[in-house]
Amino acid sequence: MPDSPQIDSPQIDSPQIPVRTPVDPVDLTARLIRCETVTPAEGGALSLLQDLLTTAGFTCTRVSRNGIENLFARWGDKGHAKTFGFNGHTDVVPVGDANAWKHAPFSGDIEDGVLWGRGAQDMKSGVAAFAAAAVDFVTDTPPDGAVVLAITGDEEGDAQDGTRALLDWMKDNDEPLSCCIVGEPTCPKTMGEMIKIGRRGSMTAWFAATGVQGHSAYPHLAKNPLPAMARLVDRLAGHELDQGTDHFGASTLAVVQFDTGNTATNVIPARCTAAVNIRFNDLHSGAALDQWLRREAQDVSRMFDIVIETEVKISGESFLTPPGDLSDLVAAAVEAETGLVPALSTTGGTSDARFVKDLCPVVEFGLVGDAMHQTDERVPTVQIDQLKAIYTRILTDYFSQSDDSDDDATA
Amino acid sequence: MPDSPQIDSPQIDSPQIPVRTPVDPVDLTARLIRCETVTPAEGGALSLLQDLLTTAGFTCTRVSRNGIENLFARWGDKGHAKTFGFNGHTDVVPVGDANAWKHAPFSGDIEDGVLWGRGAQDMKSGVAAFAAAAVDFVTDTPPDGAVVLAITGDEEGDAQDGTRALLDWMKDNDEPLSCCIVGEPTCPKTMGEMIKIGRRGSMTAWFAATGVQGHSAYPHLAKNPLPAMARLVDRLAGHELDQGTDHFGASTLAVVQFDTGNTATNVIPARCTAAVNIRFNDLHSGAALDQWLRREAQDVSRMFDIVIETEVKISGESFLTPPGDLSDLVAAAVEAETGLVPALSTTGGTSDARFVKDLCPVVEFGLVGDAMHQTDERVPTVQIDQLKAIYTRILTDYFSQSDDSDDDATA
Ligand SMILES: [Zn+2]
Ligand SMILES: [Zn+2]
Repeated sequence: MPDSPQIDSPQIDSPQIPVRTPVDPVDLTARLIRCETVTPAEGGALSLLQDLLTTAGFTCTRVSRNGIENLFARWGDKGHAKTFGFNGHTDVVPVGDANAWKHAPFSGDIEDGVLWGRGAQDMKSGVAAFAAAAVDFVTDTPPDGAVVLAITGDEEGDAQDGTRALLDWMKDNDEPLSCCIVGEPTCPKTMGEMIKIGRRGSMTAWFAATGVQGHSAYPHLAKNPLPAMARLVDRLAGHELDQGTDHFGASTLAVVQFDTGNTATNVIPARCTAAVNIRFNDLHSGAALDQWLRREAQDVSRMFDIVIETEVKISGESFLTPPGDLSDLVAAAVEAETGLVPALSTTGGTSDARFVKDLCPVVEFGLVGDAMHQTDERVPTVQIDQLKAIYTRILTDYFSQSDDSDDDATA
Repeated sequence: MPDSPQIDSPQIDSPQIPVRTPVDPVDLTARLIRCETVTPAEGGALSLLQDLLTTAGFTCTRVSRNGIENLFARWGDKGHAKTFGFNGHTDVVPVGDANAWKHAPFSGDIEDGVLWGRGAQDMKSGVAAFAAAAVDFVTDTPPDGAVVLAITGDEEGDAQDGTRALLDWMKDNDEPLSCCIVGEPTCPKTMGEMIKIGRRGSMTAWFAATGVQGHSAYPHLAKNPLPAMARLVDRLAGHELDQGTDHFGASTLAVVQFDTGNTATNVIPARCTAAVNIRFNDLHSGAALDQWLRREAQDVSRMFDIVIETEVKISGESFLTPPGDLSDLVAAAVEAETGLVPALSTTGGTSDARFVKDLCPVVEFGLVGDAMHQTDERVPTVQIDQLKAIYTRILTDYFSQSDDSDDDATA
């Protein structure tokens, strides 16, 4: 397979030094937190993981694109029919005012059973938990199959050169996945209460209406873009996109901007702008909504004889992995370790699962995310241990299934 | 009559020195232009006029309010049944970039029959023309009646302490007018083509809609004020106020502002504002429109469960002096001096005639205003001479009319 020219992907062979198990996911999380990895900095986090995984027999490849570092690690044979994947990110959002933190944001301090630091929830804990689970699992009970960890350094940024680069590289190099878990925090308040089986799509449209400036005493000499934009906004805001589907709530459209910048009251402005943000379920595609928005703008444009320009950015399509073997597998493991039957949800913003879903069935499960992106982000260490136990049970159950059942799970 | 406490109005008696007639209105305009009278500066202009008028036998009173100087001048007996009034202003708008002018804006230079300077059209020429006409007229052919000049230094500003202060003072001091001409420029392009017999009213309404800020992914947790404001603006802009009246065009409503100041696309803003400017004819009053606007805002507020605050400022009510003796008198003089039959118009912005109309019949007539408020404001001197001739003929005709006809004109 020819490599994409901008991808730099040296393959590092295992040095064949045995790893010591069990791997402590709390200690690993703390060491990852001490790596300063505000997007796009790698900060040593991927190297730390690469060392651990290489030692455990994983074949590691650094996939770099446009200055972003990512890590692909596979244990077992390339192209095995049972290839279980984990996806996560080591980059974090900025810390804000570092002095406002009780513990320095890159300290990884542990106090009274709580681990502090940026990324404690989102999601160095998740990466540490699945890395620890995977290393222990392949070391202690080597399966007939493959385990892949796809870890990115560009989830909190533009996300153009993170999981996407990894997936591009995997496609170019015939590295398949049978199914995948994204380890983002998914539980609103209580460990184990929620699995995400899909996410709404997200898109933003910007409109600019242009008329002819004039004096408000002589509106017939001007062409006022404001009533046209008000009508367009009224039509869009008043339109019911749908009433929800089996697994999604109703799609929503929020008008977020409407501006003229005109401070005079005796001047009709030549131009005004507006923006709407749409979160859409599996009844829609970004392209179809893009067309609908442009049609609405054109209708209003003709009605008012006002030029309206439309720009659309689709941040992510909606996706759904319908309830089935993969969600059953994860839910059973969650229930066994926490005693809770997790809800199958599609709420929340976007995640890299929106890219992974093009490759294989994907669900998201991780710990509680109530302090993510905030000052004093922290996590009870017991949750990290629980998460490792859940991921371990998922691997064990997955590889103990017959091939038939596996085919169903990944159909 | 008790004086209003904030009015300072010393009365200056005539020094009984005969005035030399005819007064040259071009020279008087030039001397007024050389007074720097950007609102609210008096700049010596009123003093110059007061000297001239006092010498000609006018009783002059300086009416000052809140730092604004105005001049009331009456020739003849106070309270005479035939009291003809002229109204005008000596204050001017700022000159902008003085270096951009071909002749310095306060030079009053005359070159090739053109007089240059700020106020050349608006309206030191008009004031000079009616002052020169009045002085010559009372000196050469003293009438059985009175002539009043009400000259303000606050027309281009807020206009709260200009003609309004003069009218308050006149009311307090039993100084009536039978009818009045406002000497603002009224001709779009050709001297004599237009008289204004009324003006539309003007008002501005500001709306502020307040909801609850939130994330655009969770619109049900926010209360978006934008769709409510868009609906309100759409309703107001789509409403036909009227189709015009005998002497007025249709009333107009122009949406001039709509702003959120929100730069994020994932945030629903808590607040947005909008403003509309209404120019209304004699079918409406400011108060009735104010009520209509508030009713519309309340309807939309209830519909969307969004708080909408409304603020209204009425700059002036509409007024009309129906075609009759006063407009006939002026039109006949204009036709006699220019050969044109002037149109009777109600177009344009507001003027102090909106205040004078509460006291007596008022029409506006002056020269061409095509360069007013602009750089290189200037006027052909011949127009100033014509204007003086027209005002002189109006005075002559008015005081030669029988009392009957006068009663009709001022009914
Ligand atoms: Zn994350
Ligand atoms: Zn003026």
